[in-house]
Amino acid sequence: MTQHNTALAIAALKDLLGDRLSTGDSIREIHGRDEAYSEPALPDAVAFPESTDEVSAIVKICAQHKVPVVPFGIGTSLEGHVIPTHGGISVDTSRMNKILEIHESDLDAVVQPGVSRTQLNEELRATGLMFTVDPGADATLGGMAATRASGTNTVRYGTMRENVLALEVVLPDGTVIETGSRARKSSAGYDLTHLFVGSEGTLGIITRLTVRLFGKPDTILAATCGFETVDDAVNSVIMAIQMGIPMARIELLDEIQMKGMNIFNPDLNLPEKPHLFLEFHGSDASVKEQVELFEGVGEEFGVSGFAWATKAEDRGRLWAARHNAYYAGKSLRKGCESVVTDCCVPISALADCIARTKEIINEAGLIAPIVGHVGDGNFHLLILFDPNDPEELTKAKRLASDVNRVALSFGGTVTGEHGVGTGKKKYMAEEHGAAYALMATLKRAVDPDNIMNPGKTVDIN
Amino acid sequence: MTQHNTALAIAALKDLLGDRLSTGDSIREIHGRDEAYSEPALPDAVAFPESTDEVSAIVKICAQHKVPVVPFGIGTSLEGHVIPTHGGISVDTSRMNKILEIHESDLDAVVQPGVSRTQLNEELRATGLMFTVDPGADATLGGMAATRASGTNTVRYGTMRENVLALEVVLPDGTVIETGSRARKSSAGYDLTHLFVGSEGTLGIITRLTVRLFGKPDTILAATCGFETVDDAVNSVIMAIQMGIPMARIELLDEIQMKGMNIFNPDLNLPEKPHLFLEFHGSDASVKEQVELFEGVGEEFGVSGFAWATKAEDRGRLWAARHNAYYAGKSLRKGCESVVTDCCVPISALADCIARTKEIINEAGLIAPIVGHVGDGNFHLLILFDPNDPEELTKAKRLASDVNRVALSFGGTVTGEHGVGTGKKKYMAEEHGAAYALMATLKRAVDPDNIMNPGKTVDIN
Repeated sequence: MTQHNTALAIAALKDLLGDRLSTGDSIREIHGRDEAYSEPALPDAVAFPESTDEVSAIVKICAQHKVPVVPFGIGTSLEGHVIPTHGGISVDTSRMNKILEIHESDLDAVVQPGVSRTQLNEELRATGLMFTVDPGADATLGGMAATRASGTNTVRYGTMRENVLALEVVLPDGTVIETGSRARKSSAGYDLTHLFVGSEGTLGIITRLTVRLFGKPDTILAATCGFETVDDAVNSVIMAIQMGIPMARIELLDEIQMKGMNIFNPDLNLPEKPHLFLEFHGSDASVKEQVELFEGVGEEFGVSGFAWATKAEDRGRLWAARHNAYYAGKSLRKGCESVVTDCCVPISALADCIARTKEIINEAGLIAPIVGHVGDGNFHLLILFDPNDPEELTKAKRLASDVNRVALSFGGTVTGEHGVGTGKKKYMAEEHGAAYALMATLKRAVDPDNIMNPGKTVDIN
Repeated sequence: MTQHNTALAIAALKDLLGDRLSTGDSIREIHGRDEAYSEPALPDAVAFPESTDEVSAIVKICAQHKVPVVPFGIGTSLEGHVIPTHGGISVDTSRMNKILEIHESDLDAVVQPGVSRTQLNEELRATGLMFTVDPGADATLGGMAATRASGTNTVRYGTMRENVLALEVVLPDGTVIETGSRARKSSAGYDLTHLFVGSEGTLGIITRLTVRLFGKPDTILAATCGFETVDDAVNSVIMAIQMGIPMARIELLDEIQMKGMNIFNPDLNLPEKPHLFLEFHGSDASVKEQVELFEGVGEEFGVSGFAWATKAEDRGRLWAARHNAYYAGKSLRKGCESVVTDCCVPISALADCIARTKEIINEAGLIAPIVGHVGDGNFHLLILFDPNDPEELTKAKRLASDVNRVALSFGGTVTGEHGVGTGKKKYMAEEHGAAYALMATLKRAVDPDNIMNPGKTVDIN
């Protein structure tokens, strides 16, 4: 890519989009960062397409001039996915935010990529249906599919992997494809839907999604409960899953995180020991049964009692507190910044992996609360550091690296739901071995000129 | 490929495998056909590897001589997947039939590809866990993953797509890769597991699988119930799913199939009208509740009463009858052969799609019972024909084609679970449009010499 090519592409895009192609500094700055502590980098311009045809035309222009294309949802990614490290055109999908179809009989919806998860659930309110994937941020569905996002409901309802039924995608040469139909299953050839879910914009831009919906349960009951050790909390979850208790949410917060929760949510006022935040979905009778069974499990592992949130507003407060765990964690240290990392291991290894993680946190002398989607074996570390102390940042980054390698040593993965972006590329060869070369083969075949979000997931040049 | 190349490859394979490389006619004939009515074709030799290293060595030899490699499980595929249409080496995985690991806490198992689904469930008997995917045949797990198989439990427990957590695969150059870990989820790069599930041996050979297990429910209750019309049966299922009744099995058998069921299973003796075969899994209380709810649903759609199979042996008989639906269907006409096809549509379109299908069956003047995994929108057609009447075979094939196109016109797919093989390649461009070219791009990138099961799924030469 040369400056000349970029100028030619921008001129052509200006013709195509008019005001909806911006080269202004403030717009470019917004599209030059994500929510994590990554180095920002500006796009040369930001495009605001309103249709699949426009996305296709944008990509064709960029392909002709070999200018990078970086898809942008709402900028809440955590591993630098949306940062245009190689410059080029940021393609902002915020104007493609229409809910196109809701099929109540089929339990699916067809949406544009700029629709956010709360927007879809608002729209579904009258139907008795719900979309379940809920990362901390109110991300766009396009971004969530691109990063294979998940959240607190995964243990019961799955990640974006299970909840995306089909995609429309603009390929690196501008061709528009559909990766599947609305049929619930198919054996008709390669699974292109799953190739694009988690591909982080490096193989194409998602322009439409068919997503799975679930019926809202008649009864929802949430609770918190404390344990003496992380081990006890995790083992109670393993037993509950083995017993087939169909829990909807099982979140772990360690004693450090609980301290932050109490600071950030003064009305929460829970004992500062490891906690589970739970939610049960079902009919009245089923929820009652699930609760009884889980209480029995908890007792076996020394649970110190349950605080029940029966009213909708109490439940709302509880999960709002959980979704704000990031800010609660940061409130443990005034003026701090944070390095965030997320790992996932087989659930049988989770207690040991967290124990080892806590050892190396202590060795590093840093504050790093742990929050986990424990039913999936997935945990997050929020490593706090003083932004005015470069040495501490180095230490924090080293700790994140060490924790990722601990997860690998326990047979896990360096990211359960945040993705690779630029931040986790360095672990890919270690995690995947020869399979990482196959990912490069795929990238090279689909995007030979490396224009789609170059520098993310896998390098080919 | 030349005969000379093949001879060189066979000589090298003989050195590697000794007696476990067979060129005998009877062995080759067994590996030259599947269970459907496809044209047989013989491999030049059959290899019986005992380890991943041996598979890798076999593939390296075949790659060197550009000789086709055709993976073979137990030969129960239905679209010609295992037939060596281009000759070459059939790689029979029957000696790779070890269950390597069972992880009770993680609800997963690691198995070799030659393990069959009943073998795994036998092994699991003491654990209280079960493997749920159950195609009609006692297929191997390697074959089931390769064809993205499913079965009667899919509506609750998913297909192989949801039940394969990770694979070990030998690539077309002999490289061995792992596509994932035992962690329940990951966002670490492209989803290679799903690339290989359903790839029908055209991108590599599966040499190890990590599969998902579920806890066996405390209570299982099965039933059959009749409806006046297919519409009523389907609509009751749609309502049950919308209400969130977590049914484990919901199978539709039309009135023609029921006639065959009664002939083939004289003790069944059910009214010859559309039926649902149902199974409920859960705790005592949950199953009771599900049954009450479903009875209410059935009443809304004029159900003619339920026959309950409460005892395990009655339940066993019922599902054995369902799994033998193929033979029951064939018993409708003495001495007949059959063309089998399977389609899948959004469940809201299923009743209309089946109604249209029945119209064109009548127009064709053939007998063709319908069986469906109705909770998935998936139905099978067994088109009976006289093997001594070539015109009737032509008619049967035309009917199958017409039904596949009907499924596409209802927004569906030409195969829900049987796969593409050679039999359904002709519909692929119509179903996938430009996306079919992307499948060819992937095949070309991963297997540039087209040695892996050439002629299946997608053509590249």
